[in-house]
Amino acid sequence: MNYTATLSRLFVGIQDDLDQVDALFQERATSGLDILNSASMHVLGAQGKRLRTALTLLSGKLHTYRFEKLLPLSVAFEMVHLATLIHDDIVDEAKTRRGLPTVNALWGDKIAVLLGDYFFAKTAGLIADVKDHRIDQLFSDTVATVCEGTIMEMMTAGRIDLTPHAYYEKIKHKTACLIAACSKGGAIVSNASDEEIDLLYEYGINLGITFQIIDDILDYTKDQSTIGKPAGNDLRQGMVTLPLIYALEEQPQKNGHYEQAHNLLSSTTRKEDDIQAVVAWVNSGYGIQRAFADARTYSHKAKEALSYFPPSSERAVLDELVDFVIARNR
Amino acid sequence: MNYTATLSRLFVGIQDDLDQVDALFQERATSGLDILNSASMHVLGAQGKRLRTALTLLSGKLHTYRFEKLLPLSVAFEMVHLATLIHDDIVDEAKTRRGLPTVNALWGDKIAVLLGDYFFAKTAGLIADVKDHRIDQLFSDTVATVCEGTIMEMMTAGRIDLTPHAYYEKIKHKTACLIAACSKGGAIVSNASDEEIDLLYEYGINLGITFQIIDDILDYTKDQSTIGKPAGNDLRQGMVTLPLIYALEEQPQKNGHYEQAHNLLSSTTRKEDDIQAVVAWVNSGYGIQRAFADARTYSHKAKEALSYFPPSSERAVLDELVDFVIARNR
Repeated sequence: MNYTATLSRLFVGIQDDLDQVDALFQERATSGLDILNSASMHVLGAQGKRLRTALTLLSGKLHTYRFEKLLPLSVAFEMVHLATLIHDDIVDEAKTRRGLPTVNALWGDKIAVLLGDYFFAKTAGLIADVKDHRIDQLFSDTVATVCEGTIMEMMTAGRIDLTPHAYYEKIKHKTACLIAACSKGGAIVSNASDEEIDLLYEYGINLGITFQIIDDILDYTKDQSTIGKPAGNDLRQGMVTLPLIYALEEQPQKNGHYEQAHNLLSSTTRKEDDIQAVVAWVNSGYGIQRAFADARTYSHKAKEALSYFPPSSERAVLDELVDFVIARNR
Repeated sequence: MNYTATLSRLFVGIQDDLDQVDALFQERATSGLDILNSASMHVLGAQGKRLRTALTLLSGKLHTYRFEKLLPLSVAFEMVHLATLIHDDIVDEAKTRRGLPTVNALWGDKIAVLLGDYFFAKTAGLIADVKDHRIDQLFSDTVATVCEGTIMEMMTAGRIDLTPHAYYEKIKHKTACLIAACSKGGAIVSNASDEEIDLLYEYGINLGITFQIIDDILDYTKDQSTIGKPAGNDLRQGMVTLPLIYALEEQPQKNGHYEQAHNLLSSTTRKEDDIQAVVAWVNSGYGIQRAFADARTYSHKAKEALSYFPPSSERAVLDELVDFVIARNR
């Protein structure tokens, strides 16, 4: 599967609107201060797949499409996502993201804190432009939940006893909740009924969970050249994800592999050889497959929620998006 | 002047409402996550003078007082102020604030980044509760401006050639703008006319400038026991403020004092003896007096803006607040 080509094909019906979202993002991300501008333009250059915008717009297309509301809403979601990534990179002491140096690596933690704050401020203005108080509340709740997810992630780092339940709580808060806010928000501003809004929330939360499980699998199965960051990156930061949780469940405690993973996670300086040994071991067992089976279950739930909408080309794209997320290799 | 007694007397007419603001703040600052709660309750315990809330409420009292809107607005302003202080303390590597350890000192930078973000998220919900799109925009613009002010402060640190103009730009962005947003916001939600809104903005911005100049003077004139942080704290961080700018203007360049200040500011490790020497030298000249004369000018402008309102007990309190800010000794 050619990654970029697939997305371009999927999004062809909303390409013009995606471009307008990009343009408004750039306009709003601009500051009168040079250093803020440089940092802002740097992160814009490293922007990702715009899945969030596509999701917002396509969810709107299922109802009464009102681009004048979807436009600031999409920019707000992309911008707040970027703000959380910038602050995440400080928290994780990350040096690169998507193959480019992070803001903290280039300008230091101080500018990174402030650029994130600046983006938070700007999103408040964008949300104001939507002029819908349900969106104000959705936005506030979503950002607070993402913060809580990031803290859950911090607090559970190095915890070899992390349960699947705790893992799911973490990824729902940290990642899936914002993705669900996009589809839900798109529905809200498009005069969808309460039931339709709930269904698009269901779609989004399950798509988001699928997305994150696949991300966590890829961190074990792919190398730096495809994913843009080194394999075993989660382990390197002491993060326990689903493939490892399931791999550990297969192991009688206190055998060699369990001990090796335990020692790696409880150490503060993690050697690359030890990381790669655990990565190789997780790849050799059933952890990846079980995690993938979970991802498939959640992807079915996402599709199930969609099935209540009448068939349309936009529904078909949202459906294909699920396939794309589960089949992606980077 | 007894500081606390003066404020209590000034705010006696709004005391019940101030208490309700405190209660809502506490309610909204609560999270389901223990560590977030602990950090949140810690900063609440260290809260300051609630000048911002008083300003918001009193500005409302000049018009049609609608507490149901002023309540979430006041909490939002206090909370966003606290969020910026929490992030400031990371940027400044501050260990104490108002005599208590900072969030970053107690829980580390990561939790401090996230607590600030959490508060930003919560303020968005509070602003939503106000249900006035002019407030949404005011809020977004204000927070973006405060971020720019913090960056200006960072970028001008160590700059012995800082002009009074650049100093004023910095403090308007960093401090006065949020104080002006309180009085302006209080007027907006209280059905004030455009002209009255502008006058209360004028009042707030000039009060804020006065406040910051006095703060910067106190950093030279007071010791740790009264101000809750060590004297010369700004110098210690390489921050050039109005008393130093004016003291330096008196000095022929390259004389002993100029050189001493220059060496101190351009050094990365600032010795306490050198800091105290510059503090003593600034205190011995006219820098403090000239800065104080400026503060008085701005305080007159604040009072001038007020004078267009018909006399009332609330206007009298806002007027006394200016006297309080300029006469305060901590």
